[in-house]
This record gives sequence, C-alpha cells and structure tokens, in this order.
Amino acid sequence: MSTQINDAVRQAAREAGLTEEVVASFAASAAPRLRDVMASLVRHLHAFIRDVRLTQAEWDAAIAFLTSAGHITDEHRQEFILLSDVLGASMMTVAVNSPARSSATESTVFGPFFVEDAPLIENGDDIGGGMSGRPCHVSGSVRSTSGAPLPGARIEVWAADDDGFYDVQYEGAALAGRAHLFADDAGAFEYWTVQPAAYPIPHDGPVGDLLAAAGRSPMRPAHIHFMVTHPGYETLITHIFVEGDEWLAQDAVFGVKQSLIVPFVAHSAGPGPGGRTLDQPWSSAVFDIALAPSEPE
Amino acid sequence: MSTQINDAVRQAAREAGLTEEVVASFAASAAPRLRDVMASLVRHLHAFIRDVRLTQAEWDAAIAFLTSAGHITDEHRQEFILLSDVLGASMMTVAVNSPARSSATESTVFGPFFVEDAPLIENGDDIGGGMSGRPCHVSGSVRSTSGAPLPGARIEVWAADDDGFYDVQYEGAALAGRAHLFADDAGAFEYWTVQPAAYPIPHDGPVGDLLAAAGRSPMRPAHIHFMVTHPGYETLITHIFVEGDEWLAQDAVFGVKQSLIVPFVAHSAGPGPGGRTLDQPWSSAVFDIALAPSEPE
Repeated sequence: MSTQINDAVRQAAREAGLTEEVVASFAASAAPRLRDVMASLVRHLHAFIRDVRLTQAEWDAAIAFLTSAGHITDEHRQEFILLSDVLGASMMTVAVNSPARSSATESTVFGPFFVEDAPLIENGDDIGGGMSGRPCHVSGSVRSTSGAPLPGARIEVWAADDDGFYDVQYEGAALAGRAHLFADDAGAFEYWTVQPAAYPIPHDGPVGDLLAAAGRSPMRPAHIHFMVTHPGYETLITHIFVEGDEWLAQDAVFGVKQSLIVPFVAHSAGPGPGGRTLDQPWSSAVFDIALAPSEPE
Repeated sequence: MSTQINDAVRQAAREAGLTEEVVASFAASAAPRLRDVMASLVRHLHAFIRDVRLTQAEWDAAIAFLTSAGHITDEHRQEFILLSDVLGASMMTVAVNSPARSSATESTVFGPFFVEDAPLIENGDDIGGGMSGRPCHVSGSVRSTSGAPLPGARIEVWAADDDGFYDVQYEGAALAGRAHLFADDAGAFEYWTVQPAAYPIPHDGPVGDLLAAAGRSPMRPAHIHFMVTHPGYETLITHIFVEGDEWLAQDAVFGVKQSLIVPFVAHSAGPGPGGRTLDQPWSSAVFDIALAPSEPE
C-alpha cells in the first residue's frame, strides 16, 4: 500500500514538474507577451490533459483531427475558424475585446465570409441584385453612447441570400449582398438587400463530424453582419438576427445576443421607402447602433 | 464609478455564461467520454483566452499558425505532432498513460519517425548497414518489475544516424537503423547499429518559428527509440539517451529522464562482442528494461 501511495505522489510530482519545465522553456522569450501567452497556454493545455487523463488513442485522434482540418483549409474554406467558432473560442475572444459598456451595441463573431473592398454604395442603393430572396429594406442610425449622431460613420454589411449562401460560396459569382456606406449628416443610413435565411456552417469536414458526434446542429439563425467604424470610437463587429428564427436558441457558433434580435417586418407588394414600388412582398428592419468612445467619456 | 463596476460585473457574467453555454452544447453527446473531454477542453480553452485577454490580432495569428501547420503537414512531415511535442503535450500524454510504477523503466515520447513493419532481425544482427556513423553495439535484458526474465519480449528499435537523420528523411533510402527482435530464452537481446547523434526537430515551419521567437533550441539530444511489448505487461515506449550529450538539459520535446541516460562506452578498433572484429573505433551501450505487469502484482 505504501508503495502505491509513493507511486501516486511521484506521479503527481512528475506531471506538475513537466508543466513547470515547459513553462520555463519560454522564459527567455525576447517578447514578454509571447512568454506570458505561452505560459498560460501550456498550463491550461497540460491541465486539460491531466484532468481528462487523455489516452494515447485520443491524442492520436486529436492529431488526425487537426491534420484533416489543415488539409481541408484553403483560400475558400477556413476549418480552423469554424473550429474556433463551434468551441465558442471566437465568441470568447470577441467578448474579452469588447467589454461591456453601458448602452453600447453588443458585439458578436466576425465569421469567415467577410471580403475586403466590398463596393461603396449610396444611402438607399440596392445590393441584393442577382441574389435569391424577397426584397428587404434595412435602415437605422449610428450614434455615440451619449446619444450624439455620428455623421460619416462607416458601415460595412454582408449577408447570405435566402438559400443560406454568401456570394463567395457560388463559384464565379459577382459580389452581392455586401457593401459599405456612410451614415448621412443626421447619422442615418439605409439600403436594400434580400432577406437572409438560416444556414448551416460548412459541415462536410472534421468540424462537421465533431458536431454530429456531439449531437449538435450546424445551423446558424438568419442574420446580417455589420462592421461599424468611426474615428475616436471602438470598432463594432456584430450581426442583427431575424426575430422568430427557429435557430436563435442554438446558434452553432454561440453568436446570438438578445439585444441583437430585430423584427424583420413583412409588407405586401406596394409602395415602399424611398419612393420605390415593390411588385412582390418585402420586409424591413431597423437597427440603431450605439458606438462606445475609445476613451471612456 | 458605479456604472464601471456594473459593467465589470456584467462582463464577468457574460464571459462565464458563454463558457457554460458552450459546455451545455456538448451535453447531448451520445458518448459520455466525448461530452466530458469536450467540456474540459472548452473550460480550459476559454480560461486561457480570459486569462491572457487574447487580442483579435493574436487570435488571427493563432488561426494563421494552425493553417500553416496544416499546409506543411504531409505523409513525410507532421507539424501538429511537433507542436504537441514542443508544448510538452506529447510528454504529458505519455506521463498520464504510464503512471509511476516502482522499478518499472520510465517512458518517453513516441516521436514522428516510427515506421510500421520494420524488419525482423536475429539477436546479434547489424541494422546499421548503409548508415553514417561508428558501429555501436546495444544489448540488455527485458524483465518484469519483480525481476523475472521475459523471454520472447518484442523489442522495436529506431534511431537517427550520426548526421542526425532517420532513414525516412533521406529521399528514396532503404530502411536502416530500425528493426524488431525478440528477447532470447534468458530475456536478453543484442544488436549492432551506428551511434546516433543529436539533431534538430524539423524547424523550417511554424513550429520552428515559434521556437525561434521564444529563444528556444530545436535540438534533441542523441537517443535510440525503444518500444517493448510482452503479453500481460504494459507496453513501454521510451528512449535511451547518450550520456554526456550537450543537449540533455534542453531537449526541445522534454523527453529526457535521468533514468534513461546511458553510457555509450567508446572502444578502440579490435575484437568486439559476438566474435566480431572491428576495423574502426566503436561503442557499446547496455539497457536493462523492466516492464510493469498490466495488473498490479
């Protein structure tokens, strides 16, 4: 019995010693931040392996999973972002970088479908050209958390069509459903697009296999992405979600926040905003945005 | 001030709540082990992000690192194993799977250079043919921790040459420096090879960049890999290290254990073991192995 107790003590000391040895190996990093990040990463990674008593077969499976994720990743597919998303790591990174600020609009995940240099449009323009889905008018305002309008705020938007696909997921398709525009002198903005639909994240790879093994759905509730910037204010990366979507309570990437759920009001064919007459049913959504100043006011 | 305190409380609650939401998403896994492993992984991953307040730029760098590791990995290169190795995760997995057992030979990392179906040799055969390096005679015994010889124990060995390369790292080269053999009726084994040299792990990829940024060496001290199996006993995966090697105190993969450091005794040209006459200097090493029974005795 005493042999077994001694062995247990030796074992615990050996495991703890290994962690300290690895942490110490990063102590000479020229960059203190690298040293600190790696020390924390090593401690948490080792604690995970010790907590679950990871088996060799599970370690093998982890290596195979990462290898497979690496091989499916290319310029059109980013399996590591999907992995980060479904583990809530993307959303946690968003959370620690956009601390709660009373009355500022909440953030959510950036996602893998942003494209640099989306077209500049004027307020009132339609970016839904060529996309499948009923017309949707989106309008709102950009203000400071203190209530002051922010004329000239830059608003970048992107969204899927009503089949749940982004423009970049169609081979050879032109950019659609994405643009940037600027808030007008009153801080207001508006544009036309098509109403987005819920969609599954790409799930024919290892991340999809993980979700299936865990009994989790790959679906994301319908949403429109926003990135809003203005000098002197924190950049806001967020979505608006379509109220009533059946997947709101089980977003595969944990992006939903109650404050970001917006009614998309249905309208019959007929006159719409900006003097436009619609020959089919359409919808409208309003999103009023409050940016937090970079320095607390 | 009270607004700031409220914001801090809201922020902590938001972060903690996100972790619970993600853990809960794995609660319906059909496999309880998957549920438990993922819950622990999520908790540690989220705690890491919160502890270091990971920035978006650092998250971007992590995604780029994993992508690069995936793209350099192929049938001859395994960057994810290297990553696990240099973070001590491989060695920690070995540690939790080979608990301290009084008097059993200690384990160390498996490494990426094992090959299935290495040739079967007889005791006394030479596997160093075609490899660069001075001849080296390796011998020893395989016993139970209670001291009983284990005739027929299967011994698999593999090692680098004195340029620090394994056979599989030379394009088109035949297998060399690796084999399997069986302990004789007295539990003894012996074979000839070449004396291995210290070598760097492959460091022209992202793992090498990480080591360089951290001021860490990619070197491993010279060693010979062993995998020893016998029915009724725990499989032993380990190395012997060459006593006096300059890298023993800073193995890039944290594999060194004091008990595994063995003298490689230098000899002048002349008669050697098994009636062989050497026309050049040679060395010899002895490794006596003790296997732990699968069930405590």
